[in-house]
Amino acid sequence: MTGRDGGADIGPIGENSPVVILVRPQLAENVGTTARAMANGGLFHLRLVAPRDGWPQERAWYASSGAHRILDAATVHDSVDDAVADLHRVMATCPRPRHIVKTVMTARGAAAELRASANCGLRTGLLFGPERAGLDNEDMARADTLIRYPLNPDFMSLNLAQAVLIMAYEWWMACDETPPRELMTNETHVATKGELENFLGHLTRDLDECGFLRNEQKRPGMVRNLRHLFERGEVTEQELRTLHGVVTELSRGRKARQQ
Amino acid sequence: MTGRDGGADIGPIGENSPVVILVRPQLAENVGTTARAMANGGLFHLRLVAPRDGWPQERAWYASSGAHRILDAATVHDSVDDAVADLHRVMATCPRPRHIVKTVMTARGAAAELRASANCGLRTGLLFGPERAGLDNEDMARADTLIRYPLNPDFMSLNLAQAVLIMAYEWWMACDETPPRELMTNETHVATKGELENFLGHLTRDLDECGFLRNEQKRPGMVRNLRHLFERGEVTEQELRTLHGVVTELSRGRKARQQ
Repeated sequence: MTGRDGGADIGPIGENSPVVILVRPQLAENVGTTARAMANGGLFHLRLVAPRDGWPQERAWYASSGAHRILDAATVHDSVDDAVADLHRVMATCPRPRHIVKTVMTARGAAAELRASANCGLRTGLLFGPERAGLDNEDMARADTLIRYPLNPDFMSLNLAQAVLIMAYEWWMACDETPPRELMTNETHVATKGELENFLGHLTRDLDECGFLRNEQKRPGMVRNLRHLFERGEVTEQELRTLHGVVTELSRGRKARQQ
Repeated sequence: MTGRDGGADIGPIGENSPVVILVRPQLAENVGTTARAMANGGLFHLRLVAPRDGWPQERAWYASSGAHRILDAATVHDSVDDAVADLHRVMATCPRPRHIVKTVMTARGAAAELRASANCGLRTGLLFGPERAGLDNEDMARADTLIRYPLNPDFMSLNLAQAVLIMAYEWWMACDETPPRELMTNETHVATKGELENFLGHLTRDLDECGFLRNEQKRPGMVRNLRHLFERGEVTEQELRTLHGVVTELSRGRKARQQ
């Protein structure tokens, strides 16, 4: 996973996924960690505009955690104009643009628009500025849209790879269909109401038997509270079998002690 | 912004924001970059369970880009049990849990639920495992919910600070109200239809004068196409004034040449 040979399989290359364009990047490590962040979110096309220390740089491959394919295919350009010439839409990330009339989008809004553009067959690009200074005014004038991440306004400091990661993550999320919440049950399944009723019957019988429910007035409420507890969670069939065993064993122990 | 003294103002401390719990972190640098990522998304409470190299570690402060307040207030715990004892809800990030019956949420879904819990006055925590191995089964058994980020399944490798950044970002986004798209006009405003009409009148008159629209049959379509172009964008009043100047100057130049 380190060094220039090999690298990880990073999955299929998205045809119309946005090109990440690093403008005058300073540290080769940051180009490598950018490639890693791109791979995380399914971005594959990397262009470098006038990288300070030249290109290629071995250190980028070492820092990429195996995202070699992205670095192997990266192209180098003299100018932003050259890097965006074949693209239809270009968005530029910038923390606080001033005195500019331009559409500003959140990362999430931009990701949705980039997906829409990709679906129309348009080639898109994302400009990221150099580590310290960020994009200059001439760079931003080449973009049709600016992207500003909603983040803690008192602490906006993001490194290059983190800035790329947030866009890559939003790009991925923009067509991800994972339900926000699901119960992972693996080999078992959520218990049916019948299975639950069967267990509650077992529990109530044994509690009646041991006298725990002997107060006739309180009995309905106590049984109902136990029911509420078990109905609330998403108890599985496997867990019910374990609980049956627990109740049986506890009763058996009590009976053994009574003998 | 480096070293242990000083540090950046990271804004107000959210009362019920989730506690970030790093379980057996290995590198002090990663604790520092985690603090930075937390500050980005407005998370402030950090707990460390059995950090490998002990605590405090100067290198964490250097790596935090000024998020010193978070590190200064971090507490150290012997066990996960101790670190979560006062919390009401605990979620654990884990890339691929196996043979576990547990609710799994996306980062976005989890962030919404954490916000809801905070609004109910519940204290919540997020468990992040050690750099290489991740959380073990005993750690995960202490969580009521697992969080799995939707990311490129062929390249899930995230470092600790990046994993924290995505949760911190989603925590921030879960109550951010920035419109996904807005036109930043700064000192000017979007032109009214009247202002636009005024400019189109000026342009059409000058184009009539210079003969550009002399083909009577094509004239309506040509004028309409120009109108479509200018109606499409969100042209500002300031830009219209510039365009008035451009048209006037071009006409004047033409007239001067004709004399």
